[in-house]
Amino acid sequence: MMSAREATPGTTLDQEPLFEVAQLAHVELFTPKPDATLHFFKELLGMEESEREGQSVYLRAYEDFYHHSLKVTEAPKAGLGHVAWRTTSPQALQRRVAAIESRGLGVGWSEGDRGHGPAYRFATPGGHPMELLWEVDYYEAPPEMQSPLLNRPQKRPVRGVPVRRLDHINLMTDEVTPTREFMQEQLGFRVRENILFEGGKVEFATWLSVSPLVHEIAFMRDATGCRGRLHHVCYWYGIPQHLADAAEIFAENGIAIEAGPGKHGIAQALFMYVFEPGGNRIELFGDSGYLIFDPAWKPVTWQEESLKAGAVFYGGGLPAEFFTYGTPQVGGSL
Amino acid sequence: MMSAREATPGTTLDQEPLFEVAQLAHVELFTPKPDATLHFFKELLGMEESEREGQSVYLRAYEDFYHHSLKVTEAPKAGLGHVAWRTTSPQALQRRVAAIESRGLGVGWSEGDRGHGPAYRFATPGGHPMELLWEVDYYEAPPEMQSPLLNRPQKRPVRGVPVRRLDHINLMTDEVTPTREFMQEQLGFRVRENILFEGGKVEFATWLSVSPLVHEIAFMRDATGCRGRLHHVCYWYGIPQHLADAAEIFAENGIAIEAGPGKHGIAQALFMYVFEPGGNRIELFGDSGYLIFDPAWKPVTWQEESLKAGAVFYGGGLPAEFFTYGTPQVGGSL
Amino acid sequence: MMSAREATPGTTLDQEPLFEVAQLAHVELFTPKPDATLHFFKELLGMEESEREGQSVYLRAYEDFYHHSLKVTEAPKAGLGHVAWRTTSPQALQRRVAAIESRGLGVGWSEGDRGHGPAYRFATPGGHPMELLWEVDYYEAPPEMQSPLLNRPQKRPVRGVPVRRLDHINLMTDEVTPTREFMQEQLGFRVRENILFEGGKVEFATWLSVSPLVHEIAFMRDATGCRGRLHHVCYWYGIPQHLADAAEIFAENGIAIEAGPGKHGIAQALFMYVFEPGGNRIELFGDSGYLIFDPAWKPVTWQEESLKAGAVFYGGGLPAEFFTYGTPQVGGSL
Amino acid sequence: MMSAREATPGTTLDQEPLFEVAQLAHVELFTPKPDATLHFFKELLGMEESEREGQSVYLRAYEDFYHHSLKVTEAPKAGLGHVAWRTTSPQALQRRVAAIESRGLGVGWSEGDRGHGPAYRFATPGGHPMELLWEVDYYEAPPEMQSPLLNRPQKRPVRGVPVRRLDHINLMTDEVTPTREFMQEQLGFRVRENILFEGGKVEFATWLSVSPLVHEIAFMRDATGCRGRLHHVCYWYGIPQHLADAAEIFAENGIAIEAGPGKHGIAQALFMYVFEPGGNRIELFGDSGYLIFDPAWKPVTWQEESLKAGAVFYGGGLPAEFFTYGTPQVGGSL
Repeated sequence: MMSAREATPGTTLDQEPLFEVAQLAHVELFTPKPDATLHFFKELLGMEESEREGQSVYLRAYEDFYHHSLKVTEAPKAGLGHVAWRTTSPQALQRRVAAIESRGLGVGWSEGDRGHGPAYRFATPGGHPMELLWEVDYYEAPPEMQSPLLNRPQKRPVRGVPVRRLDHINLMTDEVTPTREFMQEQLGFRVRENILFEGGKVEFATWLSVSPLVHEIAFMRDATGCRGRLHHVCYWYGIPQHLADAAEIFAENGIAIEAGPGKHGIAQALFMYVFEPGGNRIELFGDSGYLIFDPAWKPVTWQEESLKAGAVFYGGGLPAEFFTYGTPQVGGSL
Repeated sequence: MMSAREATPGTTLDQEPLFEVAQLAHVELFTPKPDATLHFFKELLGMEESEREGQSVYLRAYEDFYHHSLKVTEAPKAGLGHVAWRTTSPQALQRRVAAIESRGLGVGWSEGDRGHGPAYRFATPGGHPMELLWEVDYYEAPPEMQSPLLNRPQKRPVRGVPVRRLDHINLMTDEVTPTREFMQEQLGFRVRENILFEGGKVEFATWLSVSPLVHEIAFMRDATGCRGRLHHVCYWYGIPQHLADAAEIFAENGIAIEAGPGKHGIAQALFMYVFEPGGNRIELFGDSGYLIFDPAWKPVTWQEESLKAGAVFYGGGLPAEFFTYGTPQVGGSL
Repeated sequence: MMSAREATPGTTLDQEPLFEVAQLAHVELFTPKPDATLHFFKELLGMEESEREGQSVYLRAYEDFYHHSLKVTEAPKAGLGHVAWRTTSPQALQRRVAAIESRGLGVGWSEGDRGHGPAYRFATPGGHPMELLWEVDYYEAPPEMQSPLLNRPQKRPVRGVPVRRLDHINLMTDEVTPTREFMQEQLGFRVRENILFEGGKVEFATWLSVSPLVHEIAFMRDATGCRGRLHHVCYWYGIPQHLADAAEIFAENGIAIEAGPGKHGIAQALFMYVFEPGGNRIELFGDSGYLIFDPAWKPVTWQEESLKAGAVFYGGGLPAEFFTYGTPQVGGSL
Repeated sequence: MMSAREATPGTTLDQEPLFEVAQLAHVELFTPKPDATLHFFKELLGMEESEREGQSVYLRAYEDFYHHSLKVTEAPKAGLGHVAWRTTSPQALQRRVAAIESRGLGVGWSEGDRGHGPAYRFATPGGHPMELLWEVDYYEAPPEMQSPLLNRPQKRPVRGVPVRRLDHINLMTDEVTPTREFMQEQLGFRVRENILFEGGKVEFATWLSVSPLVHEIAFMRDATGCRGRLHHVCYWYGIPQHLADAAEIFAENGIAIEAGPGKHGIAQALFMYVFEPGGNRIELFGDSGYLIFDPAWKPVTWQEESLKAGAVFYGGGLPAEFFTYGTPQVGGSL
């Protein structure tokens, strides 16, 4: 039964992978219309409010385990407040902080926020505010909200078409490459898929993850030349039918559906994009796509000729502004 | 906006988690009825045959990236051939081999098999043959089977209700605890959920993973006192409707459905259990359940009083032999 | 291209089918726990309240077009108030009344009720109170509840897992045959499927309809020997996933699931049975099953040897009390 | 409990509805590429071949009860062969033939075809060949294809994503009104929905049925001014997920998806449109939409201002050629 191949186990990799960032912990969104934004997340997406403080409201999906996965903060314009990552250990947090500082991109420690402990702030080369943290507060449901499912932090809401957990974030910037390299080198993200134009000379977009998810974060080139803008935040259903259910209540309740439900070839993502009333684009993810367990994964590259299936495998196209609209808005788009 | 909590980042864990095993690479099943077993996997589950060699046939689901995820070997009795794990790097492979050898459970290196390179063989304390490996052969589709989805190794078959990838394995043994400890300590598995009886004194079952999946492997107590038996191998659909589709074709084509479609509270797994014609229990997984990204996850423990929802959250019960039937069969069960 | 068969169109049927009853218009349920019953229908099944009058509350599903499809009336015991059928024309109403009167089963005209005009009351041979009517009030949504779907009487609720319309009713009685014959002969129902035991001597259950639905009504033998009891009322989703969604919120909110989600072979019905807090059994129908357009349909008969697939094609079994429990309860069942 | 409304049952309708046509029995399609067309229907849609005769092949979906629901005939150009309707009784057949003859649109009796008896041929005012028939041959499965579901004429195929039954047909013509009136007056069809432009002056499209289905047939204005063209034939899944499954295999196997999966507001139809290799547009219907049981149904009218939701409620738009492409093709479209 033995094959003819040589039995020399142990060819080493030049560099072993880093396992230091564990997950996307939360995202802060700015909105100029906080009441309408909260109505969207709470009544239509069934999210729960954990706390209010100043101009911010903290929300979580019903299977998010921590205090919050979304911080909605009133601001003059829609856009990204910050992105927070949890490390795989407190030691990993220290090592990643040192690595970021060595690149000169660190901002410094905050004492924390509602729901989590000290966080180290930094910005990507593309201008996106982020933080790294270890200590988090877990959500504890009051007795009437406890589920017989001990692995579910609370009952499934009977309100809207409730999302289950924060999935990923997609950010825009003028040049994808330096930000992608930073995420790989300082934080250990792995490139899962990308869009390269002109024979690989132009890195248009990249999808990265620290887990078997195809992405916890993606970056795409901002055609307006802006840095630091938000393309979308994505929440996860895990059940394809729920995209159709959500589409129905969006179509009946004044929420603009930009695209979908449909399936991207990229990430095999069952998508739908809508605009929350504050103007931020929100993606709803219908299934789990495919998962990457291969530790030697080579990025899947979509180029001019394959991109049609990559952008939309089925389910209607993406409008032109999908590639230019971000928050905060610039010029007069949308 | 800063909280009053102390800003002392860096409380260290006593021991940082191991990230050395990446994934369940493949499983070998024994069957006394190879033709019928292959018909089940190929015609009803839509699996593809990669190669034949001696008494073995190598199969893969259409989104399995390697040469095979299932090796079906003719044998006098149904049961488990072996379980293979791929490490996160060749260096990790060397380290894990050293750790296993230090426990005295190693068997030694094989030169490899069809589809993979050298593999280190060992047995769990519970008597289950396993191997660790790094080098794998990737499946390459012939032109007519290539998908426009560049992240899909081949087109979705138009045969049966095709499964997408190998998901997990569930093994039985006389005592769960020593095997669970071995998986944690030597291989870095993390306990995600378990069933403890008598106030925690009896470890009845445990679900472990090295990834956000709730489990790549589970162990449950074998009421017959046997060691090393197989409870089931599980393939994944990711789409709940496909369990119903599969149930229809099983019910019409002589495949016994033992339980489901339904939902376990444990792992929030949308399950269905059937017996392939050779006698091995096969699970089909409908969705992705929930995923665990929390790096400090505490095991969810089901006890006598919560187990009803844990075993079946909805969808009909589990028959008594679910807890006693394994392969190879002993006595006269089923 | 012509076949050799004789071209003698016009072999006549002995009797042409009657098309005089159009639909199941509404059902009245008695409940000893009206508040809890209303909470079940309104908060978990997303039904809308149209009106209250005396001890009754009138409800409709969001795609029911008339004033109500369910009248919930407080009463000492759970059970059936009455069943109302709408005819295909006012002339048909007159003809059916005459036919019922000729059988001596008529009770007389009522002036009508909230939401409908004059109704002719009668009882089946099996003791079930029914009425026939023509005039109905249509539901008119207030502006904020109007849907852009002009064929949907109101927006889909964002509350619970909302049912779409009343589907059918299932009644128990001591002898099925006389009641089935009455429904066929006086009202034009057609037998679609039945369960016959002992070589056809015992008519255990029958499913009848006046439309392509497999049934708007079914009758089954009451093992207790009672007459006039309710087995269940069924509301329709039309989307299989919604049964799983409903199962989740039932399992988390104290609603007992008796059986399912699963699929009956009979009617190919994707079913789930639960008990509303007042004690009446409620079925939720996941898809549309199959539809019967054949005007010369011959009843499908399930007998002892085929009944296993008929009762449950997949998805767990039916408990013993499924065949004995009805409302009002007798003896100590459940 | 009595309402104040007068209890004068018996307001009569001027004209009682006709119940003389029961169902769409089968459709004949012309194709210039019979092999490729058959591959599409048999391998991708899982249809079964009943018989071959001359240049025709007879097919049925697995829940079609008769000999065939589709006759595929080789011809120089794609397009409609004919549409066949089954009446509710042999007497009704005679009465409808007399009515058609009185309008001068009859062609005469054929002796029948494979799978059915004598058929009366006629053409609509819009130029569509049709026939009316009563006698049909039922499909009888050989033992190995018999299902334990006694109400299913054969096992569900394990090939492609199998459709369940013929649903409806959509035809184009220069003027909708005369054809719609003919279908109502001579055959008893009821208008369920329509698109009227310019304040009702222009009848752009109409959906008609003889059953609770929103339509067995629709007519839309042909912008090219042609008469008698086919817009599409529709087969039914009844399960929304199956549209996504079919989309996957179409996208991987060279079948052009014109639009969808998505949901029309009109008919609440979960649609997908594709072109079979011969050039005919085929619709796949995902769920059952809504059903109309109201015997006094008033047509739902979509006008300029409501049509956006009518055309596509969610799921991507309809391309311009959706309104101009029909078979046989004229000019250079597509």
